[in-house]
Amino acid sequence: MVDLYMKDLITTQEWTMDEIEEALRVAARYKQIGRAGREFPPVLKNKNFFMVFFAPSTRTRGAFEAGATLLGGHGVYVDVSTTRLGAGEAVKDVAKMYDIYAHGIGVRLLDKVIDFKYGTGNPVIREFARVAKKPVINMADDMFHPTQALGDIMVMREKLKRLQGKKFVVMWAYASKIRGPCSIHADLLIASRFGMDVVLAHPPGFELDPKIMGWVRENAKESGGSFEIVNDYKEALKGAHAVFPRSWHTWQLGQVGLSQFGLERELEIHRKYRDWMLTQELVDDLMEPGAIVTHVLPVFRGEEATDEVMDGPNSVIYEQAEDNLYAKMAVMALTMSGDPGV
Amino acid sequence: MVDLYMKDLITTQEWTMDEIEEALRVAARYKQIGRAGREFPPVLKNKNFFMVFFAPSTRTRGAFEAGATLLGGHGVYVDVSTTRLGAGEAVKDVAKMYDIYAHGIGVRLLDKVIDFKYGTGNPVIREFARVAKKPVINMADDMFHPTQALGDIMVMREKLKRLQGKKFVVMWAYASKIRGPCSIHADLLIASRFGMDVVLAHPPGFELDPKIMGWVRENAKESGGSFEIVNDYKEALKGAHAVFPRSWHTWQLGQVGLSQFGLERELEIHRKYRDWMLTQELVDDLMEPGAIVTHVLPVFRGEEATDEVMDGPNSVIYEQAEDNLYAKMAVMALTMSGDPGV
Amino acid sequence: MVDLYMKDLITTQEWTMDEIEEALRVAARYKQIGRAGREFPPVLKNKNFFMVFFAPSTRTRGAFEAGATLLGGHGVYVDVSTTRLGAGEAVKDVAKMYDIYAHGIGVRLLDKVIDFKYGTGNPVIREFARVAKKPVINMADDMFHPTQALGDIMVMREKLKRLQGKKFVVMWAYASKIRGPCSIHADLLIASRFGMDVVLAHPPGFELDPKIMGWVRENAKESGGSFEIVNDYKEALKGAHAVFPRSWHTWQLGQVGLSQFGLERELEIHRKYRDWMLTQELVDDLMEPGAIVTHVLPVFRGEEATDEVMDGPNSVIYEQAEDNLYAKMAVMALTMSGDPGV
Repeated sequence: MVDLYMKDLITTQEWTMDEIEEALRVAARYKQIGRAGREFPPVLKNKNFFMVFFAPSTRTRGAFEAGATLLGGHGVYVDVSTTRLGAGEAVKDVAKMYDIYAHGIGVRLLDKVIDFKYGTGNPVIREFARVAKKPVINMADDMFHPTQALGDIMVMREKLKRLQGKKFVVMWAYASKIRGPCSIHADLLIASRFGMDVVLAHPPGFELDPKIMGWVRENAKESGGSFEIVNDYKEALKGAHAVFPRSWHTWQLGQVGLSQFGLERELEIHRKYRDWMLTQELVDDLMEPGAIVTHVLPVFRGEEATDEVMDGPNSVIYEQAEDNLYAKMAVMALTMSGDPGV
Repeated sequence: MVDLYMKDLITTQEWTMDEIEEALRVAARYKQIGRAGREFPPVLKNKNFFMVFFAPSTRTRGAFEAGATLLGGHGVYVDVSTTRLGAGEAVKDVAKMYDIYAHGIGVRLLDKVIDFKYGTGNPVIREFARVAKKPVINMADDMFHPTQALGDIMVMREKLKRLQGKKFVVMWAYASKIRGPCSIHADLLIASRFGMDVVLAHPPGFELDPKIMGWVRENAKESGGSFEIVNDYKEALKGAHAVFPRSWHTWQLGQVGLSQFGLERELEIHRKYRDWMLTQELVDDLMEPGAIVTHVLPVFRGEEATDEVMDGPNSVIYEQAEDNLYAKMAVMALTMSGDPGV
Repeated sequence: MVDLYMKDLITTQEWTMDEIEEALRVAARYKQIGRAGREFPPVLKNKNFFMVFFAPSTRTRGAFEAGATLLGGHGVYVDVSTTRLGAGEAVKDVAKMYDIYAHGIGVRLLDKVIDFKYGTGNPVIREFARVAKKPVINMADDMFHPTQALGDIMVMREKLKRLQGKKFVVMWAYASKIRGPCSIHADLLIASRFGMDVVLAHPPGFELDPKIMGWVRENAKESGGSFEIVNDYKEALKGAHAVFPRSWHTWQLGQVGLSQFGLERELEIHRKYRDWMLTQELVDDLMEPGAIVTHVLPVFRGEEATDEVMDGPNSVIYEQAEDNLYAKMAVMALTMSGDPGV
């Protein structure tokens, strides 16, 4: 019997497969209810989910706030983007306060707010979780994005049916903007739990956190899948069943921060790999028939991928966004109320 | 049988008179309920109305958010004023996302966000409407403000009873701040549908969109009303039953944008017509006994109109604000739930 | 029979002891419900509490918004921090608008928004209260913070049982940031109503509003308590049962505003009294056994007080924050619905 009541979700890596499956089961039931236009069980009735945004968000915020309403509760949107981390009061006191007022606490903290310095955001969320007794949900930090991982694996399972042995390519893609790797980690970590043959393709210089790559490798071993890192996206795409094309910044930038590394210097590296863009031709020529193209959005159209492929027959991006709503609802319901009502 | 379920509201011009009358009927019933302090039918129970504000707002936002609550739903306030139009992700992807999360989508986009360049805001809202299956409600753009039009005509009908043949003056008025013409268009378009004798008074240079003026003329022909444009506000006010004194920017500024036209150059033109201010004396001397003074607010007191007239016996501005709440509730209920419960 | 329906709360000084006791009774019942995890009476069902924040807030906003949800209602968060007071439309028109849309109106207006010029914030809230028929709740201005006063006295009574004759020290404390005195006034005004022996300790130059000090003196006379002002915090702490260590700005700065007085000049004065910091040693050596340390938060740790004392056995700061939630809920329920349901 899986009980997620009051449990934090910092990364899916800290949830058992039974817990993840329970979240996906509830999400699937919610999707049925949503698509049928039926009323959701009011399991969050008059409950508050505080959403503390150190970094801006529309999609994640929209999904959590809408989802809270659908379950009868209320998402309290707290924008602390103007708060400079470290200035002002202790994180402990803020966390303690929300612990008193809330039934659950979401925290988002990434990118600009930490100057893209890898590894400095997650500890703040862990401090929230340490202090608060109520469930703390990671709404994206510099390392993880667990609720997105759940939505992403949900859409992949719906489309590919059995995930075991399916080839999933996480492909670095060119963008003229800088972003962190949390969504990349999220998908690598979850897909490798489900026995997929995960291939990470990126140009040299865009290596990811070795510790997390180690976890992915172990996940694959345990699940009967595999994990490979390559520097050639065309090679990677051959025979793939799913691809997620998305930009992230260089490892070196993440070590020192954007302001020290320099935006122009970073973009110059990006521009060397301007051809790392997913096109419909690549999908048609290299991937398996019926392969799917995923993206967590926002996608930089014309950079990471062409309009054609994003709006094309292989793209599942909007259903993925839909699944992300239900995955977030499932997480809130399970951790904040104990009984998801389905 | 009028069915507004899932219908967009971009401008009242695209709603039939039957549809407009149905909205006004529901708004009037809601007003009875509100004034009696009774409970509203919870027709938006656990539903989300996403309010996407590209431009700041307090009044429109307040009315929609309060109204959503009163009907059991939730207005999700999304401030994208910091988002520069055109930068970032495709409108299509944003619209698609809200379409998934919301039961209805409101969009506001005007003035500064488009540099007051006339005609560049509305297409964005139309893009939302094109992409989203859910109803898209125009919460004011550079051309239209349909929910305000409904509230405005509601208060005029309450006060003047029969609107047919009543003279309604929309009067340009001096202000030291720049505003777009959406509220002006809104009232011209709706009043001319109801058979009023509409007179638009403005100084030379403040001409409005000829296409919309054409629609107003046609509306008047169909409804048995009339439409006239004059350059003399005193002449216009003679025998009028209603007046709406409000500033808007010059036609020329709207063609090139504020930053190119220049604020000082624009205000210099405004200042030539500093006497275009509604006073109680003008109301008393020129208008019909019992005439009403309307305003969509905010009003620039001491510029567009004196305190005396705004707070005087002819002013209906606060009841107009009240009617705007009920009109917005009616629009949300009809388009988002199908059954307004009254 | 105490009836608080539709009553404003600008300062506790304007509520009778019967009214204050009723608010505390309801708050205590809500606390029982909250702690037991039971459902609150939905006395604010589908009602809107508009929270107009001229100044930023997380705690007060969090408590009001969470509390509104818990009672079935909705807290509408309105951030007008970008609005420069005096620019834009008349306060009257804004207040009138919220009066139409809301069942209750909270207003916060202090510190930076008024350049810390003492006495210029409160009149704006009074203008809201004058215009609006609905209850106006002061969510902190430059003079008062009444809902916090209620939460503060609640925790003191819980911990100290009988308040009559208990010694309560309100102690100026060093901080490298500037804050107004509203929380200080709040606690002085309420504690003196409950017969406490109130001692205000501050360095020379940090005198408070003589008019309010007069009220405190009168309160003490009426309640059988006492009120004393001293310049020696060690002397003050001797035999005390409760202490609230917190910074506020000099009287002189409050007279002319921060921008004229100068931040550096102010902080230089503060730094002369860097030793005014509450430590566990002071508590252990000077105060009564079982004495409590309160704070309205945020506390500047390492300045106003040490981590040790804030996290130590005498500290009640988190339960105080909890009581503040219930006190705010009680005020909303009593003023906005009439029947608190308990």
